[in-house]
Amino acid sequence: MSVSTPSRPEPGPLAPARFPELPAVAGVRLGATACGVRYPGRTDLCLMTFDPAASIAGVLTRSRTAAAPVDWCRARLPTGRVRAIVVNSGNANAFTGRAGWESVVRIAAKVAKVVGCAKEEVFVASTGVIGEPLPDQVITDSIAGLFETVTPKSWQPAAEAIMTTDLFPKGATRRAEIAGVPVTLNGIAKGSGMIAPDMATMLAFVVTDATLPGPILQSLLNRANERSFNAITVDGDTSTSDTVLLAATGEAVNPLVTHAADPRLKRFRTALEHLMIDLAQQVVRDGEGASKFVTITVTGAASARAARRIGLAVGGSPLVKTAIAGEDANWGRIVMAVGKAGEKADRDRLAIRIGGVTVADKGERVPGYDEAPVAAHMRGREIEIEVDVGVGRGRATVWTCDLTHGYITINADYRT
Amino acid sequence: MSVSTPSRPEPGPLAPARFPELPAVAGVRLGATACGVRYPGRTDLCLMTFDPAASIAGVLTRSRTAAAPVDWCRARLPTGRVRAIVVNSGNANAFTGRAGWESVVRIAAKVAKVVGCAKEEVFVASTGVIGEPLPDQVITDSIAGLFETVTPKSWQPAAEAIMTTDLFPKGATRRAEIAGVPVTLNGIAKGSGMIAPDMATMLAFVVTDATLPGPILQSLLNRANERSFNAITVDGDTSTSDTVLLAATGEAVNPLVTHAADPRLKRFRTALEHLMIDLAQQVVRDGEGASKFVTITVTGAASARAARRIGLAVGGSPLVKTAIAGEDANWGRIVMAVGKAGEKADRDRLAIRIGGVTVADKGERVPGYDEAPVAAHMRGREIEIEVDVGVGRGRATVWTCDLTHGYITINADYRT
Repeated sequence: MSVSTPSRPEPGPLAPARFPELPAVAGVRLGATACGVRYPGRTDLCLMTFDPAASIAGVLTRSRTAAAPVDWCRARLPTGRVRAIVVNSGNANAFTGRAGWESVVRIAAKVAKVVGCAKEEVFVASTGVIGEPLPDQVITDSIAGLFETVTPKSWQPAAEAIMTTDLFPKGATRRAEIAGVPVTLNGIAKGSGMIAPDMATMLAFVVTDATLPGPILQSLLNRANERSFNAITVDGDTSTSDTVLLAATGEAVNPLVTHAADPRLKRFRTALEHLMIDLAQQVVRDGEGASKFVTITVTGAASARAARRIGLAVGGSPLVKTAIAGEDANWGRIVMAVGKAGEKADRDRLAIRIGGVTVADKGERVPGYDEAPVAAHMRGREIEIEVDVGVGRGRATVWTCDLTHGYITINADYRT
Repeated sequence: MSVSTPSRPEPGPLAPARFPELPAVAGVRLGATACGVRYPGRTDLCLMTFDPAASIAGVLTRSRTAAAPVDWCRARLPTGRVRAIVVNSGNANAFTGRAGWESVVRIAAKVAKVVGCAKEEVFVASTGVIGEPLPDQVITDSIAGLFETVTPKSWQPAAEAIMTTDLFPKGATRRAEIAGVPVTLNGIAKGSGMIAPDMATMLAFVVTDATLPGPILQSLLNRANERSFNAITVDGDTSTSDTVLLAATGEAVNPLVTHAADPRLKRFRTALEHLMIDLAQQVVRDGEGASKFVTITVTGAASARAARRIGLAVGGSPLVKTAIAGEDANWGRIVMAVGKAGEKADRDRLAIRIGGVTVADKGERVPGYDEAPVAAHMRGREIEIEVDVGVGRGRATVWTCDLTHGYITINADYRT
């Protein structure tokens, strides 16, 4: 079931063929509507509701100029309780002063009244233009009608309603088990520019029917987030609104676990990490102007954290990204980017592989390496770069896209 | 006297009208030649020689994958002595392993033999492609002939010989006095991409006839460098080769000063800082694809250092830079960039002025501000952005350029 979005351009060349089939997650209902925050003729408001037992965890932007909804979520998270998440696109309600905060309070209060809960159990997120007052009345006026339409299966309409410059809706699902009890995880996300660690102009909402207390959820989310949304970069900009929420409805009656490292959570941890990596990769695949999807694996670093920083320095380098756009296996720029990461690297032990071919080893070009398979690899859509920095055993994988004329076109003419 | 560079494109729209008239500096001679490192039909080798009394200071890249000539200069700087600087373009001699180091030693030894000094008194810099072996014999074969042609006035040929993707040669001159004794400062620089703090793919050579011991020179250089080359960004990439050298010939017989804070150095300090800012701004004006020159002044920060970091976050943001390219006064993106700098800022006291017009104040859009002069300002070549972050008295100015299709075109098709 697709909601029509008449004025959108076509998805880019890296888009998945279709939105995946997301099953129902017991205890969650959701829906979307067009309330008219900014864009005419498209959905822009999404409501998720949770049965009363649900718990929640979250990761929020570290921006010093965070948006009002982020302040609201930060204040609510310690309770670990959730009954609803409401998200609008078109306006980020960021840098909107006291009026922006009051808008959030009115929206939360209205949702609480309609859903039948405390406003402190309502989480709010907004994405879109910064610095414009949020016309919250069009939102509050739509909540009651929207609540009438929520279903357990409206994942695609929800994913579409939270899009801004995204060209395709992003969703993923995984199954796992906790002590033999099957559980489901679903997630939706939005984001295509202003994508950097920590996170992005990026919203993601992941839900599961597992029974997991808030503190354990938080611990699981932090770990998976490091390896997914904190391991991607599109343009190195950090949003005022980044929000990742993970809710657990408790409808699956798995035995209660009391710490995140419990071995019975192994499959759940893996499923959560894979689901979040899937969503994060979709954000990169929808990177503004992206024509190539780039996987960068760093090994031999002092730690996993150092490896990730080096990978993000490579993946964030405009010179590396433009070389990839130009299908140029310019590993000299990779060397440059490794050098600027600020992490320990041994220049004279550095090795670089592109598309599986070693092009540089022990700090020097490999004399006479076969350029043909490398050139062919660079002409493809999926680029693999491996860097060994020769100092330790830390490793990490990060994902990025190339930097093309499309990025300039999109961003030199967005607001006006 | 201009050396012909047949295959170069025209200087961009921000280029100065002409190379300035640089006077002789007593004790310095210089020249340039085409030795054929990489580009046919253009000069690519520059030699500066100094009379025996000269002292030297330097600032070098912090890259962990620094080029061989940088290693050489780092080892030589503590002596504070210089008799020659030799610079080639076309090949950075970076990531070239042991062979690269041996090339530097051969070049320094050859220059020393021709000039008549120790090889430890020769400083070497290289700029151009990374990871290709340097064909140093074409350089060493040219040194004797080049030495025959050095003159006190060949500043423009020298500035042209060190260019890579630069579209115009960069030079600047200032006069000052130390305790009433007149002194001259000249400088040349190159750089147009891979420009970020700390520094850039950037080389700069500043010389003066003042009498100043090495340690004082170093202290003066560090301070001026913070406010000039460390206050610009083009693309956020950091080179393996960044080198700024400051040499003093001691031909001007000013009284000896024994510390950098000596009040008799006040005018010299100012002249040095202004000269280096002039060169740094020329690098930005030659920024790859730049169509607008952007001055960002940050006030109200916790410290000058914090102000500079915030300014560089704004000036380095691809979303801010593309908005400027699109002539869009998108101050929401400025708010975003302030937030990501990681420095203290009070969102609810933030004020932003564009072209002198206050567009945001006390953390909110100024209702009904006059958009016409702001729009007119954005259509100009010189963009002024002022940000007050409302927490202290720290201030700094940084310079950047816009991010255009030209940057992508240049960098997606450079090496191949």
